[in-house]
Amino acid sequence: MAFDKPRNELYQWSVVSALVDGVASNGLPMSDLLLHGDHGLGTFRGMQGELIVLDGQGYQMRHDGTTRPIDLSPSGDITPFSMITFFSPTISTMASITEKNGVEPILAALTPNARNAHIAFRLDGAFKSITCRTAEGQCFEGEGLKDVVGRQVSITLGPARGTVIGFRSPEFLQGIAVAGVHMHFINEERTAGGHVLALETDGEVNVQVSELWRTIMDFPRDKQFNEAEMKLDAEGIRKAEG
Amino acid sequence: MAFDKPRNELYQWSVVSALVDGVASNGLPMSDLLLHGDHGLGTFRGMQGELIVLDGQGYQMRHDGTTRPIDLSPSGDITPFSMITFFSPTISTMASITEKNGVEPILAALTPNARNAHIAFRLDGAFKSITCRTAEGQCFEGEGLKDVVGRQVSITLGPARGTVIGFRSPEFLQGIAVAGVHMHFINEERTAGGHVLALETDGEVNVQVSELWRTIMDFPRDKQFNEAEMKLDAEGIRKAEG
Repeated sequence: MAFDKPRNELYQWSVVSALVDGVASNGLPMSDLLLHGDHGLGTFRGMQGELIVLDGQGYQMRHDGTTRPIDLSPSGDITPFSMITFFSPTISTMASITEKNGVEPILAALTPNARNAHIAFRLDGAFKSITCRTAEGQCFEGEGLKDVVGRQVSITLGPARGTVIGFRSPEFLQGIAVAGVHMHFINEERTAGGHVLALETDGEVNVQVSELWRTIMDFPRDKQFNEAEMKLDAEGIRKAEG
Repeated sequence: MAFDKPRNELYQWSVVSALVDGVASNGLPMSDLLLHGDHGLGTFRGMQGELIVLDGQGYQMRHDGTTRPIDLSPSGDITPFSMITFFSPTISTMASITEKNGVEPILAALTPNARNAHIAFRLDGAFKSITCRTAEGQCFEGEGLKDVVGRQVSITLGPARGTVIGFRSPEFLQGIAVAGVHMHFINEERTAGGHVLALETDGEVNVQVSELWRTIMDFPRDKQFNEAEMKLDAEGIRKAEG
């Protein structure tokens, strides 16, 4: 039987509020995550670095500035939080973007009927400048996202060719996902990138978009998740991940 | 190919915050909803009455005190919000319950490792008293849940044999689902019931429970949902649905 990939459905493992509470010791094997998509982002055990998945290939982007393909072996990488989809863009256009805040209005204009749905998007091309952060990871088990991100390392690349993988999520899903735009970048050489803090394109880049109307959400069956309080910290999430 | 029913996965159509905003003009045909489960609850177009699904059979319980099997024809009933699962209980026990607030501690004690997951449950037996409300429906398109429920009709049944179908959802999903316990009742004769406001068992009833670790959530692709603000009204939801 052929494996029918469910195109443009969002799969997510855990929720952002669990990361906020430091739930990052366990998670889904990356080999299982990739059964649910070829386009995604997330993090690693202990919030060590940033995950980007593009064209079915995942990379870890680490705080020391290095990157490596994710380890899909049985004892390999796991993810305590990720969002992924089999990306089948229904819109492809060119746009120039002068600041990170310019991404959301472009997406909103392209998908006026999906204001309250998730959007998956991808930007490809030349960036005049792109600033990325990579989380160094937890200093101790259960350390919260806010403190981890407080020690983030950021680098500014550019000019650089590369790809941004992102999701735009509606406001009412804050805490489940990241409300607004959440995006990770990796350069064309696959040697540098991270969570996007700022960007400016060098002329126009290709913008591809799909609307995601179905979400499949799995919760971790582990003690840390079970005990997490997960009170919504909307402002904290905006600062850490927005 | 045999249709493999995904046991103990939650399927939900839309979110509670959309109902709060009065998004109830359109929805999923009930015939499609039943592809996703045999145990569930929800509402109807215009919030007219309460939906209960048990053993794969759905009923509408209306404000005039009547009930009827749901209409599965192509032009039949639709639901603007529902939660459903193929219920395969992993726990079955007997318990006596003296008040509605007694349900949640029993569920919590039976599923200590699923504090942050959804729980599906079912109570069968004799109720000394059970008070149910049925929503009369919207007076105008887009009328919010709070105002609709303000006009609810409640009846107290008892002694009555029957079945409670319910879900217990974690606090961090308030607005997506109903945080805490949400349950609908129908009597053995299938002639009366509704959203449970109060209950007391007559001796012990059978309590069946399953943990739901996966959620599949579909969002409505319609103008009303797209335009809804869906600001979280936790207190309003607690009053209307808790």
